[in-house]
Amino acid sequence: MLQKIIPALEWLRNYNREDLKGDLTAGLIVAIMLVPQGMAYAMLAGLPPVVGLYASTLPLIVYVLFGSSRQLAVGPVAMMSLLVFAGVSPLAPPGSEKYVSLVLLLSLMVGVFQFCLGLFRTGFIVNFLSHAVISGFTSAAAILILLSQLHHLFGIPSSGGHSAMTVLKGVIQGMGGFHPATLGIGLASIMILVIFKRKRPNFPAPIIVVAASTLVVYFFGLDQSGVKIVGHVPKGLPSFSIPEWSVESLEVLFPAALTILFIGFMESISIAEWVAAREKYKIDSNRELVGLGLANVTASFFSAYPVTGGFSRTAVNYQAGAKTGLASLITAAVILLTLLLFTSFFYHLPHAVLAAIVAVAVAGLIDVKGARHLLNLRKMDGWTTILTFVATLVLGSEKGIMIGVVFSLFVFIWRSSHPHTAELGYLEGEDVFRNVRRFPEAKLYPEALILRVDASLYFANMAFLEDFLRGRIVEKPDVKWIIMELSGVNDIDAVAVDRLSDIMDNYREQGIQFVFAGMKGPVRDLVSKAGWREKYGKQCEYLSLQHALKGLGLM
Amino acid sequence: MLQKIIPALEWLRNYNREDLKGDLTAGLIVAIMLVPQGMAYAMLAGLPPVVGLYASTLPLIVYVLFGSSRQLAVGPVAMMSLLVFAGVSPLAPPGSEKYVSLVLLLSLMVGVFQFCLGLFRTGFIVNFLSHAVISGFTSAAAILILLSQLHHLFGIPSSGGHSAMTVLKGVIQGMGGFHPATLGIGLASIMILVIFKRKRPNFPAPIIVVAASTLVVYFFGLDQSGVKIVGHVPKGLPSFSIPEWSVESLEVLFPAALTILFIGFMESISIAEWVAAREKYKIDSNRELVGLGLANVTASFFSAYPVTGGFSRTAVNYQAGAKTGLASLITAAVILLTLLLFTSFFYHLPHAVLAAIVAVAVAGLIDVKGARHLLNLRKMDGWTTILTFVATLVLGSEKGIMIGVVFSLFVFIWRSSHPHTAELGYLEGEDVFRNVRRFPEAKLYPEALILRVDASLYFANMAFLEDFLRGRIVEKPDVKWIIMELSGVNDIDAVAVDRLSDIMDNYREQGIQFVFAGMKGPVRDLVSKAGWREKYGKQCEYLSLQHALKGLGLM
Repeated sequence: MLQKIIPALEWLRNYNREDLKGDLTAGLIVAIMLVPQGMAYAMLAGLPPVVGLYASTLPLIVYVLFGSSRQLAVGPVAMMSLLVFAGVSPLAPPGSEKYVSLVLLLSLMVGVFQFCLGLFRTGFIVNFLSHAVISGFTSAAAILILLSQLHHLFGIPSSGGHSAMTVLKGVIQGMGGFHPATLGIGLASIMILVIFKRKRPNFPAPIIVVAASTLVVYFFGLDQSGVKIVGHVPKGLPSFSIPEWSVESLEVLFPAALTILFIGFMESISIAEWVAAREKYKIDSNRELVGLGLANVTASFFSAYPVTGGFSRTAVNYQAGAKTGLASLITAAVILLTLLLFTSFFYHLPHAVLAAIVAVAVAGLIDVKGARHLLNLRKMDGWTTILTFVATLVLGSEKGIMIGVVFSLFVFIWRSSHPHTAELGYLEGEDVFRNVRRFPEAKLYPEALILRVDASLYFANMAFLEDFLRGRIVEKPDVKWIIMELSGVNDIDAVAVDRLSDIMDNYREQGIQFVFAGMKGPVRDLVSKAGWREKYGKQCEYLSLQHALKGLGLM
Repeated sequence: MLQKIIPALEWLRNYNREDLKGDLTAGLIVAIMLVPQGMAYAMLAGLPPVVGLYASTLPLIVYVLFGSSRQLAVGPVAMMSLLVFAGVSPLAPPGSEKYVSLVLLLSLMVGVFQFCLGLFRTGFIVNFLSHAVISGFTSAAAILILLSQLHHLFGIPSSGGHSAMTVLKGVIQGMGGFHPATLGIGLASIMILVIFKRKRPNFPAPIIVVAASTLVVYFFGLDQSGVKIVGHVPKGLPSFSIPEWSVESLEVLFPAALTILFIGFMESISIAEWVAAREKYKIDSNRELVGLGLANVTASFFSAYPVTGGFSRTAVNYQAGAKTGLASLITAAVILLTLLLFTSFFYHLPHAVLAAIVAVAVAGLIDVKGARHLLNLRKMDGWTTILTFVATLVLGSEKGIMIGVVFSLFVFIWRSSHPHTAELGYLEGEDVFRNVRRFPEAKLYPEALILRVDASLYFANMAFLEDFLRGRIVEKPDVKWIIMELSGVNDIDAVAVDRLSDIMDNYREQGIQFVFAGMKGPVRDLVSKAGWREKYGKQCEYLSLQHALKGLGLM
């Protein structure tokens, strides 16, 4: 029973000592990655760096207890940080007390929503986020993140804009007044990080850059000559507080909470499933929502900000040998220790280095190849990616992703409302019926119009079918029978049944009868419920076209 | 060439004198219906009654010239009038100068949008209005209209609310102070109208009620004792003016314009197609949009309000013998004559009678049977109707119809994202493959999992397919082959191809190969574009399951 609520009990009770080495190594390596990343991402989210460390402690422990992945490395991630910044910075100046308090409320909302979605087993809704949308959104978000870090790298004041254009304009205007030492530190950090990323991708290079730059700034007193540094990082554990809320702030944060929820969950579930497939265990998406939800509620109670399972850290965790959630517990313990003992080490850490860490982490997310691949495969799916990309850059993350989702669903609906429809003829040699356009030699029957619809029939494509019928009938004045091959009709809705019934009645008045062949189960169920057997006679349904033509005496 | 722009030239040039009698009779009867209806609907729209007469003149002539139906009776209709009232009355007091000017602008917007939609041949979008949505919306709108007329019938002041509840509350609160003579006239009119409707549905009873009540009020001086009357109706033709506009008013009227456009077009096109099917000519939905669009632009320039093809008047027009657009020209001429000569006759016409005409006209639109029918046939389609109905009553027409459209599309997407999937076994006697759940005697192959998906594959249902696969594979540990029967897969998108490719690669690592049977053309095109032939070999595609099993040496 208890194990059903806390799935971690399974591996905790039966912990295999052989796993310890892997868990320990992986936990330590992830912690070493997470210290600089946590601070960098918190800065990206418009929060004091220490908040990123807070977000790397208790939420990890809570996720380990309630989540279903054993290798997922939960914590602050770049995309979520950008979304927090985009959602809250129009409401309060970043870094201000009100800003922090809104972020805590946002975490609570994200957590509660995720928890409820998981509890009511509605995790499937993430399926409606097409990969084409995610790809466009991720590329645009990466560019927005890169742009947002430029002022830290150049050592110029932030222009505070939100869309890609305003931020870029601000940077270009201020670029002349760049701070040489800051830019130098930033570029050097980027170079080191890029080299390590290429040569030794699993080495925690950020900690090297952090240590080296801190020492340089400390010994040369660069902070005195204008290099912006992290400054005082409060010592000790995050304090407990319940976020303040009002109806108004719930309302304004709502769209941001929804976006963060979905994007965060998508990132997390994709990497969790990737690992689980390799380790042959099953991820339960609803349990994942519960785990991440509780982690975010914890984040909001302990001065942190929204977390999720990070793509790159999880990959590192897994490759470094993590077997169970113990790895994440070790990570959290190391971060807690850092908060208790080592925060003063970060006093001289330059902002430019944190910006460099963010920039290098997200640069790889810009996915031009993916968009090109989709465009080659099917134009409309490529356009979904491009539209989401442009909309996210121009209108911001929330509207961008919404436009992408709506467009991708629209593409599907659009295709379904214009189904592939063909008039069929008979190929005597092979005893099959084929599209007369592709097989002009196929035999036609002047008294019968044989046609096939390749789509589920529903309200939005009946007019199309009707037009098609009308067009064909005009060209075949002697038709007495319309024979519809329905094996491609997987489903039908009540409106389509009624409409088809009207069409049949209309043609009947003109002396044309309908006959159906190859009806599938769900369709047969519905038309018999609609009383077709009584109305049109059972003989209007045939197993196959051959049966139908024989039944009508045409073959 | 000219005939392509003005399709009416076709019948005008070749006018058959035999059609004259029918056209003349029908034109006159419709005019006699239209005079009281026009005034009643204008009042329902919150406009002076004469506006309803203006709307029954030039717009009709313009539609006849540019539209494609020969029997459609264009003019003011109840539903559009309600929508005009709902859209404009929150912005200005009904009847005020500002109100009238906003209505003119609204007509212009509706007209221009319709015209453009027609010009760019996008008339198909009405297909996305499911009959299930229209049915729920119509019933709710009829109730809203009935409620809006109650204060006229009781002779009490209007409470001015918009939702069904507030209007009903206002009427109940004011009901005590009802005006006996007004109520008497109203109820008597309703009785007479209902009796005629039942016994002689094509008789223009409203004109009788109008004449009788006007005479009664005039002779007994009932207007002196408090019966509200139409009063002065200006004589003469509508004057030309260009509607005033501002960006702000365009913005606030936008949702109302969209709703009116679609609802108006739906009502019009359904009845036009009904007649055209009986008369064996073709309605061109884009041409209809152009015709109605120009009619509405004309309405806005000549002091009228949005018009469309009315359901009941068109039926009467057709049944009274209308063969060509000449009938509508005669209707317009009679109304023009009325405006020039007879407006003073309507001075003593009581409001209660106009309310009675509206009430009787719309009462028949409440369609409980339709909702029950859909509910019986397929639950979800019935719920679409009920949801649209409730949303329209509670939230108003625009939101109601929008919620209905979104929900109906959601139902379709929902079904497509949970496709019917079956594991198949072989029935040796009949040489066919069938669902093992329905045919437990079907032969299974321990080394092969045979399954069929009955849906187009796209981003939203791939996770479902993946889960299904995972579940089946767990139960069949010896599986070496997954054989997918794809004859029900009408279409596939690029995201699904990529995902399927990932799934195949994942299973391949576990020593399980994929094989496909019965791939349709569009699917084959896409997977070959994605390089499956090179990657997985051509042997992974078989014509049928029999071919596949033989090819794998299992049969």
